[in-house]
Amino acid sequence: MSPASDLLASTLADADFHPRLAQQRRLYEAAKSAIHQQQLGAGNKLPSSRDLARDLGFSRNTVIAAFEQLAAEGYVTSAQGSGTYVANLPQLAFISKASVATGGEAEAQLSKRGNDITAFAAGARYEIQPFAPGEADFSGFPFKLWQRLQNRLWRDARTDLLDYGQSGGYLPLRQAITDYLRISRSVKVNVGQVLITAGTQQSLDLCAQLLADAGDTAWVEDPGYWGARRVFQACELALRPVKVDADGMSLSEDDLATDPRLIYVTPSHQYPTGVVMTLARRRELLDVAVRKNAWILEDDYDSEFRYTGRPLASLQGLDTDNRVLYMGTFSKVLYPGIKIGYLVVPNALIEPFKIALYDLQRPGQLMVQAALADFISLGHFTAHVRKIRQMFGARREMLRRTLATALTGQRARISSEESGLHLVVELPDHVDDTALEKLAMESGIHVRALSTYYLAPPVRRGLLVGYAYVTPEKITHYGKVLASVIQSGCAEVVPPTCAKWRSQ
Amino acid sequence: MSPASDLLASTLADADFHPRLAQQRRLYEAAKSAIHQQQLGAGNKLPSSRDLARDLGFSRNTVIAAFEQLAAEGYVTSAQGSGTYVANLPQLAFISKASVATGGEAEAQLSKRGNDITAFAAGARYEIQPFAPGEADFSGFPFKLWQRLQNRLWRDARTDLLDYGQSGGYLPLRQAITDYLRISRSVKVNVGQVLITAGTQQSLDLCAQLLADAGDTAWVEDPGYWGARRVFQACELALRPVKVDADGMSLSEDDLATDPRLIYVTPSHQYPTGVVMTLARRRELLDVAVRKNAWILEDDYDSEFRYTGRPLASLQGLDTDNRVLYMGTFSKVLYPGIKIGYLVVPNALIEPFKIALYDLQRPGQLMVQAALADFISLGHFTAHVRKIRQMFGARREMLRRTLATALTGQRARISSEESGLHLVVELPDHVDDTALEKLAMESGIHVRALSTYYLAPPVRRGLLVGYAYVTPEKITHYGKVLASVIQSGCAEVVPPTCAKWRSQ
Repeated sequence: MSPASDLLASTLADADFHPRLAQQRRLYEAAKSAIHQQQLGAGNKLPSSRDLARDLGFSRNTVIAAFEQLAAEGYVTSAQGSGTYVANLPQLAFISKASVATGGEAEAQLSKRGNDITAFAAGARYEIQPFAPGEADFSGFPFKLWQRLQNRLWRDARTDLLDYGQSGGYLPLRQAITDYLRISRSVKVNVGQVLITAGTQQSLDLCAQLLADAGDTAWVEDPGYWGARRVFQACELALRPVKVDADGMSLSEDDLATDPRLIYVTPSHQYPTGVVMTLARRRELLDVAVRKNAWILEDDYDSEFRYTGRPLASLQGLDTDNRVLYMGTFSKVLYPGIKIGYLVVPNALIEPFKIALYDLQRPGQLMVQAALADFISLGHFTAHVRKIRQMFGARREMLRRTLATALTGQRARISSEESGLHLVVELPDHVDDTALEKLAMESGIHVRALSTYYLAPPVRRGLLVGYAYVTPEKITHYGKVLASVIQSGCAEVVPPTCAKWRSQ
Repeated sequence: MSPASDLLASTLADADFHPRLAQQRRLYEAAKSAIHQQQLGAGNKLPSSRDLARDLGFSRNTVIAAFEQLAAEGYVTSAQGSGTYVANLPQLAFISKASVATGGEAEAQLSKRGNDITAFAAGARYEIQPFAPGEADFSGFPFKLWQRLQNRLWRDARTDLLDYGQSGGYLPLRQAITDYLRISRSVKVNVGQVLITAGTQQSLDLCAQLLADAGDTAWVEDPGYWGARRVFQACELALRPVKVDADGMSLSEDDLATDPRLIYVTPSHQYPTGVVMTLARRRELLDVAVRKNAWILEDDYDSEFRYTGRPLASLQGLDTDNRVLYMGTFSKVLYPGIKIGYLVVPNALIEPFKIALYDLQRPGQLMVQAALADFISLGHFTAHVRKIRQMFGARREMLRRTLATALTGQRARISSEESGLHLVVELPDHVDDTALEKLAMESGIHVRALSTYYLAPPVRRGLLVGYAYVTPEKITHYGKVLASVIQSGCAEVVPPTCAKWRSQ
């Protein structure tokens, strides 16, 4: 048995090589690693395929196939008749040198924006996360019905629905959304202006990339939505936090001294405070956008969840100057993972947005888009919204009552607005809400400190409590636990004041 | 009937208001528009709900509800007992002024990058587009089987699969991909390094944003893949085109004088030329990446489609310094719209990439991910790849033969590499391939001019012809049409030379 055969045989025995690999592949891997480790040096002659086959107990064809593979990748050269030789690979030398030189040191460098984006991981706690431990409760979703709609499409083997989604998305869905937005949201829209995206993050990304350049300023509500800020940071926009008061985004003189390219707002139901932007503020903002020649990005993320009265009209509906891009999502009304959102753009932007949507994001999922189109046009959507609105409203009431009872005598106030998927428990300014968040976590309860939603120094303290996807049983049980956490936390953090409150 | 009632009644009659709207909503809309058009000026008193209900023949509750809505949005104010008045909205004045001032003029401005991205619409013609008219042929996709796998998941009402995909994607799918990449692509990977993305565009976006800043340089193959360039442009990277020769990306002294943060390559099967990067070039590139402290983005977009021999090992598999990020997609093996891709990152990048993937893209579609995981782990994937590889290989052969026969005597050469989803018909340098592309279009045939894939002045001329999703019948028929287009086009463009060739 030749030394080379010997070497390859032992290398083959090496446990590193996946048992599921075919003989040919294992031999190829063994030879490759032997060459890499220079156990088989450049110019070395390999045994003939006949000899090696015999030595290893492989079929000769297996060995020949492995040799061909090695030759194809330049590891070996076979000169007609004169056998197979290890190729001359000078690079091997300095590669290994380089490895030693840098080691792992160079590895973890991110770009500046990469560091900004990942500095604070919002990912672990997104807006609709249930406060109680365990899985989110999506039992409100009509599985059977949805499955039936999907199956009809798959049964018909609609090959056209397997392709990428071009020209802005599946037309019947865009039409259904157009009708819905006109009637329910007073959006001024024709079907051509509606683009189907993979969700709000994708809508925001598209807007930021097409409408703003690195270094441009974006006004964002403060406190405000993490996800939008991350996208703007990824696009290297300069974020300017704008205070939010009881009337919504409130522009100061300093704010008005800056020139934003983008203005991101959630006027129907400010995230996370729940404030509704007043008509006066809406008009002021539209006027500022025109004067500053800026674009307003209206994120109407949860207008379906208004439990008393009807949702307010959209800001876009008031826009007479085509400065507003309106976006919504089905992630909250149907299920988060559906990843279907929509973006309504002014006529002048339709073409560039269609091109960029396709070239940058290559949208797909037409099967899901078609199922959703049927779901809406057959009237199931309206029925579903009515159903979960009632369901979530009841859960909200239940959580509010549970907390209110347990928190009597505390200074913690529960936000009164009648919409959305979470409650805000407002705390005295000097209470450390992040400490409370950690305390709650120790009882397995997920709440978010209001102060973490600020870019500027926090103005208000509080806890966001997501109730929409929590079963009633859990709400009553964990609601009490949460209340006691708030009490104790409050006691720990500022005992005297708390004592004073209690004595009142 | 009071003038206000009169006005509202006539406005209500206005066809603008959707017939499907409820009475309450129609009254609300009518009042709103009357206020906008200042037919109902600030301070005007509205009729009492009782009177208006009588005048309009609505129920009084309908009118009260509409008034409440108007009050909620700040259009009217109701002073206790003294009735309802149109609110004072000074903004109305300058809004309409502003509209007049700017008109539509300000509308179409895009950002600089927005203009770059949309300047050249690649969208209309993506890489796997069939050359023959009509729908892409996806008949190779196992509808029944896929539907069965999906249904099992929906029947089990897996609510956990409705949520967003956190921590890098559905674990069983990540495991299945890990095994597949180890065995089939020699990728050095453990499951923790695998992230599920919504496709290659999303993988590229993540890499560009996390690893490079605006203004940083990215080396891209020239000719090369449009989609990657668009994403880099959207991230404001400076693109440096690097020549591609018969051995793959070929670095010149000038190239080496620059300092890239990213190096984007398709080494297994260069897009669009089909060249395979040699081992020497791979080693050189890895060494350069280490010296330059740059990241290599290896896009292994279609390695499944190698019709003779087995696909070459990945570049990542040779990397001893953790400089390579490896990406692949299921869009070409299964169907484009599935929107599931994968990204393999060095260990040091796992955490930041997981955070950013979640915060920036909010991945979902766990149901599809789970179906795909089953599809792979039950062995259907391997079988499917084998099947379509054979199918596409046959189509490739058929197209090649058809063109070869029809083009005998021409100087047009057909690329010989045995892989991918398209053929390249190479044309003499002085033939205008874009003119041929247009000519073909006039016969309803979609081919792409090789020269349009260049950033630098084109070095080679040719036509890309996608055959994978075209039925055999169409291939033979339209293949002949295409050949005659090439002949005539060639004749039109450079008659004397063509004549010379023919005479040879």
